[in-house]
Amino acid sequence: MKNAKTTLSKLVEIALRRYEMIAPGDKILIAVSGGKDSSCMAWDLASKRAWWDTPFEIAACHVATDLAEEGYANPVDDSWISARMAEWGIPYERIDVPVANRLKPGETMNCYWCATQRRTELMKYAQERGFNKLALGHHLDDILETLFMNMMKKGEFATMPPVMPYKKYPLTVIRPLALCEERQIIACAEELDFRSSTCTCSFNLNGERNKTKRLIDRITGGSSHVKRTIFASMSRVRTDYLA
Amino acid sequence: MKNAKTTLSKLVEIALRRYEMIAPGDKILIAVSGGKDSSCMAWDLASKRAWWDTPFEIAACHVATDLAEEGYANPVDDSWISARMAEWGIPYERIDVPVANRLKPGETMNCYWCATQRRTELMKYAQERGFNKLALGHHLDDILETLFMNMMKKGEFATMPPVMPYKKYPLTVIRPLALCEERQIIACAEELDFRSSTCTCSFNLNGERNKTKRLIDRITGGSSHVKRTIFASMSRVRTDYLA
Repeated sequence: MKNAKTTLSKLVEIALRRYEMIAPGDKILIAVSGGKDSSCMAWDLASKRAWWDTPFEIAACHVATDLAEEGYANPVDDSWISARMAEWGIPYERIDVPVANRLKPGETMNCYWCATQRRTELMKYAQERGFNKLALGHHLDDILETLFMNMMKKGEFATMPPVMPYKKYPLTVIRPLALCEERQIIACAEELDFRSSTCTCSFNLNGERNKTKRLIDRITGGSSHVKRTIFASMSRVRTDYLA
Repeated sequence: MKNAKTTLSKLVEIALRRYEMIAPGDKILIAVSGGKDSSCMAWDLASKRAWWDTPFEIAACHVATDLAEEGYANPVDDSWISARMAEWGIPYERIDVPVANRLKPGETMNCYWCATQRRTELMKYAQERGFNKLALGHHLDDILETLFMNMMKKGEFATMPPVMPYKKYPLTVIRPLALCEERQIIACAEELDFRSSTCTCSFNLNGERNKTKRLIDRITGGSSHVKRTIFASMSRVRTDYLA
């Protein structure tokens, strides 16, 4: 196994164990976009399934939208996803959600709307088919970006947690890539010969998240050590030393 | 009353009330360095003493060090402090602490050592004379800088809190300037005709805190709104949404 693949595999293992993401008999639905993050995650979970301490099931689902037809994004190559899932032995289904068409008159497309629509459909799909976990491909940089956006825009110390049980549904979101940096995922995707790892949606390329990404690059100087130190502060909140 | 003085006065009042910094009959020792922050704080607390809902006592103490003699800093003009305290009716005393001379052979001067020595002496002084509160002149920018340094260097979400009771001593630290930005204090000091508001110590001018100060300027673009939003995140920690 090459270097970047090993690194990703180890970091996912550490995350799965540290945050107790997998329990015996779990039925895990993997959300696959066709991008590098969720593709690497699906590849790694498929290989872990063979040797993990306790048995778990996986399947994958791709939420296709009407964003391409509506001119917001390039079309997603679903056949590529489908072929990879078959190769890795992951049962796969595609569902179509008319995200743009669901907008009411006067409403405009935005990332929050699109993400919420897709998440809701995934949750519905997962519950109807008896999945108890939903695996999302957010990585360490995503989590730090959300942390800073919440601090700077909402005045909250909060982010996308590695494990998040829904209170109202028998479903838990897990983020197995929580300890992987984006650069590590890109390297892994290259070793796996995945095609272009760029986002298929061009709607919000210069949006808030990208501004925050550049901000964090400046803050950390790109240092993994500093990023992981900031990440650690999320689990070391000293309430006696806050306002 | 001029504008910047009014602003500072209001922000201190909000902090005193929001964080319940003053209880009836408090004996508050104000740590005065001769710099703009603690001078503005002493000026404001002296004026509030006359009309505050409940009675409280104040006195001021300046910790003089041997840093100037040892070549680390410019000498502090203690007569200026003494004159201001007399003017505002604040009992004042100066204590001398040989910070540099206390270094053991082989140890080198650093900000942490100096600050700890001075704090310890202040606490001793306060307790021996029956003070139950110690007022320090840290402002909102100081608090944010410490927050970011702790996140980036120590992996902790922690800072200098507006109110901090010592566990082992009958003494509580309060920071009445917690809601004042440095620029607001500078403006107030100018209105009060204080002399140069620069720090008298040149030891660590290019140190970690100044680097962090510039970092926060970049992050916030100098925006008060963004700074205060980040400040708010310290009291809105959403543990369900963290690692």
